[in-house]
Amino acid sequence: MKQIDLMKELHVPSDKKILMLVLDGLGGLPNESGKTELEAARTPNMDRLCKESICGLSTPVGLGITPGSGPGHLGLFGYDPLEYAIGRGVLEALGIGLTLTPKSLAARGNFCTLDPASGVITDRRAGRIATQKCAELVNKLKAITLEGVKVIVEPVKDYRFALILEGEGLEEGLSETDPQKTGLKPLKVEPLHAGAKKSAKLLNAWIEKAFAMLHDEKPANGCTLRGIAKDPGLPSYKEVYGLKSCAIATYPMYKGLARLVGMDVLDAGETLATEVATLKDSWAKYDFFFFHVKKTDSSGEDGNFDAKVNVIEEVDSLMPEILSLKPDVVLISGDHSTPATLKSHSWHELPVLLYANNIRKDTVVEFGERACMAGGLGHIRHVDLMPLTLAHADKLTKYGA
Amino acid sequence: MKQIDLMKELHVPSDKKILMLVLDGLGGLPNESGKTELEAARTPNMDRLCKESICGLSTPVGLGITPGSGPGHLGLFGYDPLEYAIGRGVLEALGIGLTLTPKSLAARGNFCTLDPASGVITDRRAGRIATQKCAELVNKLKAITLEGVKVIVEPVKDYRFALILEGEGLEEGLSETDPQKTGLKPLKVEPLHAGAKKSAKLLNAWIEKAFAMLHDEKPANGCTLRGIAKDPGLPSYKEVYGLKSCAIATYPMYKGLARLVGMDVLDAGETLATEVATLKDSWAKYDFFFFHVKKTDSSGEDGNFDAKVNVIEEVDSLMPEILSLKPDVVLISGDHSTPATLKSHSWHELPVLLYANNIRKDTVVEFGERACMAGGLGHIRHVDLMPLTLAHADKLTKYGA
Repeated sequence: MKQIDLMKELHVPSDKKILMLVLDGLGGLPNESGKTELEAARTPNMDRLCKESICGLSTPVGLGITPGSGPGHLGLFGYDPLEYAIGRGVLEALGIGLTLTPKSLAARGNFCTLDPASGVITDRRAGRIATQKCAELVNKLKAITLEGVKVIVEPVKDYRFALILEGEGLEEGLSETDPQKTGLKPLKVEPLHAGAKKSAKLLNAWIEKAFAMLHDEKPANGCTLRGIAKDPGLPSYKEVYGLKSCAIATYPMYKGLARLVGMDVLDAGETLATEVATLKDSWAKYDFFFFHVKKTDSSGEDGNFDAKVNVIEEVDSLMPEILSLKPDVVLISGDHSTPATLKSHSWHELPVLLYANNIRKDTVVEFGERACMAGGLGHIRHVDLMPLTLAHADKLTKYGA
Repeated sequence: MKQIDLMKELHVPSDKKILMLVLDGLGGLPNESGKTELEAARTPNMDRLCKESICGLSTPVGLGITPGSGPGHLGLFGYDPLEYAIGRGVLEALGIGLTLTPKSLAARGNFCTLDPASGVITDRRAGRIATQKCAELVNKLKAITLEGVKVIVEPVKDYRFALILEGEGLEEGLSETDPQKTGLKPLKVEPLHAGAKKSAKLLNAWIEKAFAMLHDEKPANGCTLRGIAKDPGLPSYKEVYGLKSCAIATYPMYKGLARLVGMDVLDAGETLATEVATLKDSWAKYDFFFFHVKKTDSSGEDGNFDAKVNVIEEVDSLMPEILSLKPDVVLISGDHSTPATLKSHSWHELPVLLYANNIRKDTVVEFGERACMAGGLGHIRHVDLMPLTLAHADKLTKYGA
C-alpha cells in the first residue's frame, strides 16, 4: 500500500496543532571556520527546543540527489518526489505568482537567437538578454490570440518567460521544441499521445505567430518551449491527512507549491516579521502551518555564508514569539541543502528537529548538521516526516488490529 | 525481487538454533523519572548479553505508524505488513483461540441496538453490554444453522463476538454491514466480486435469523458484521525460511498469528515459568523459537509503568536459564511500542538486540531505547530482522555468483 493511501485511511482528527518551519536551503557545509552556517549561527532558542526534541538527518529525494524546489517541498509535504512530478512549466508559472486551473497548460519559454538565413539556433539563450528586454518582448507577444483558448504570457527572468494556455481539452504529453544544441532548427511541438493533438496544434500556432513578431529583433528573434505540463492534480492535504492547513510564505513559488496540495495561502507580507504576525493572526483557524523562510536559500545561492548565518539567527530570535503560540508539534528542517561554499542547491541531508510532548528525546542539545548525525531519528527521508509529525499530533489511528 | 522470494531462494540448512524473544509492546517513553520502562528496569542479564551483541532501533510498519498486533508480528516474522494484511475477523477468531481452516470465513460481530419501529441503529455497541451478557446472547445464536456449512459463533468481549462459516466455496471480498453511524439501518453483506456471492447469501441468511432471535432483547436487539475475511494463506516459515519453527506463547492471539505462518504452536501454560519450561522441553525438536511475552503490553496499556518494569525484570531474571540452552542466535525486541505514559500502542521504534557469535559487536552496553539510538544496527525495519537473524545462523547462502 502506498504511503499516501495509508495516510488517507489512518488519519483521524485531534485538537493538536502542527508547525512545519521550513528554512529553504537550510543544510550547509563547513567553511574555513570548520562550521556550517547552522553550526556557526548563535541559536539559543532552537538549541533550547532541541533539548526537548528528537533530531536527525533527512534526505529529500534520494541519496546523492540534489532537489529543485518542487521535489524538495513535495518530499516535505509527504508526496514521494520520484512518483509525483511537477512539470517545469508549472513551476515557472507558480514562481511568478500565476495561478493555474485544471484547464491550464503551462510551458517554460526561452528566447533564443536564430540565424536569419537558415533558421538554425545560434544561441539557445539569446545572449542572456536582460529581464527588462525580456519584458518588452513579452509585451509584444501578448498580442497573440488563439482560437478558443485564453493565452497568458509573462516574463520570468533574463531570457525566460512563462506561457499558459487555458481552455477545454488541453492535455499534457507534448515534446519540447528546444533541440538542446545550436546549429539545429527549433523543433515542432509533437503530441506524445492522441489526446494531446489539440494542445500541440495550438502551441505550434502560437510559436509561428511569435516567430513572425520576433523576426526583426536582435538577438532574441526566436524562442523555444520546454516542460509543457498541467497542474499534477495532487491529492490535497485535506484528503490525505484530514488537515486544515495554511501556508505562510513570501515568495510566489512556495505559495504556488502549497496551493498545489490545497493549503490556504495566506497574505504574509514580505518579511519574517510579517510572516510571524500572520502566523499569530491565523493561529485559531488552522491545525497545520507551513511556514517558509526564503533567505537561507538565497544567501546560500549567493555564496554568502555570513548572510545565511544572519538569516538563521533572525529566525532563532523569532522562536520565542512563535513558541508562545504553544504549537503541539514543531518540525524544523529545509527542502534541500544550499551550502554557501557551493553557491547552489546540493544533495546533502537536512538537519531535522521534531518537538512534541510525546517525543522520545535523544541526546542532541544543539541544532546543527554534525549534532544531528547522532540524533535519535537517525537518517530518514523527507516523505516520512509528515507521518511522523501527524503521529506525534495524535492524528493517525492504529494500522490493523 | 520480493524479500520473501529471496528468502525462499537463499535459505539453506544449518544446525544453529534461533531464539526470537518478543516482549509485546516493549518500546516505551520516559516517565517523570526521565527513563523509559526498559531503561528503568534492572536488567543485568540482558545488559551482559548486550555487550556481546549488536543493537539498534526498529520500525514495525512505517515511521509514524502505530501497528496493531497483527501487523506488528507480521513484520517480526518477515512479512511486509503493508503487503500482507490479516482481516479483522480472522484476528478476532484467533484472539479467542479458534482455529481457521482454508475453508473458513471469519467475521467480527458487534451487538447493537435497533429502534424497534424503524429498524435504524440507535447504539452501534448496544450500550457496551457486559461480556457475560454477550455470552448469553451468543448461546442463543448458536442455534442458527445454515444449509451446507458449519456455523461457529463465540463471544469475544463486551459487545463483540466472532462468527465463522466453514464449508466449500466460501470466498472473501464482502462488504461490512455496520453503516458506521447511528440513525441508519444495518446494511446487507454485498459481494465485491462474483465469487463471493455464495458467502454473502449465507451471511445475510444468518443475519436474518439472528435478528429474529434477538428481536425482544434489550439493549442488544441487533448486530453487525465487520472485517469478513479468510486466513490470508501466508507462505509458511518452512517454505520461506526452511525453518522447523515453534511458538511459545500464552495468549490465543499470538498462537493464532504463529499458526498463520505455519509454526508449531506448543502448549506453554500460562506463565513465564511454564513458557521457559516449554522452551527447554522442546529445545531439541526445533531450530526457530518464537517466544512471546504478553504482559509488557498489557501493563503498558494499563498505564502501569512499574508493572511493565517488573515484567521486564522478570524476563531478565529468566535469561540465564534461557541462555543455558546455548541458542546460537538471540533476537530480543517487540512487535510495537506500548508506552505506559500513553496507555496504548504507539509508533515509536523498538529497541533490538541481536546476539550471535559472528556478530559485529557495537559499543552499546545497556539494553534501552536511548542506548539503542547509538547501536550498530542503526535504524532498521521489522521485516529486515528475519533475514539478519537467519544470516547470523548460517541459514542463508550467497546471492548471485
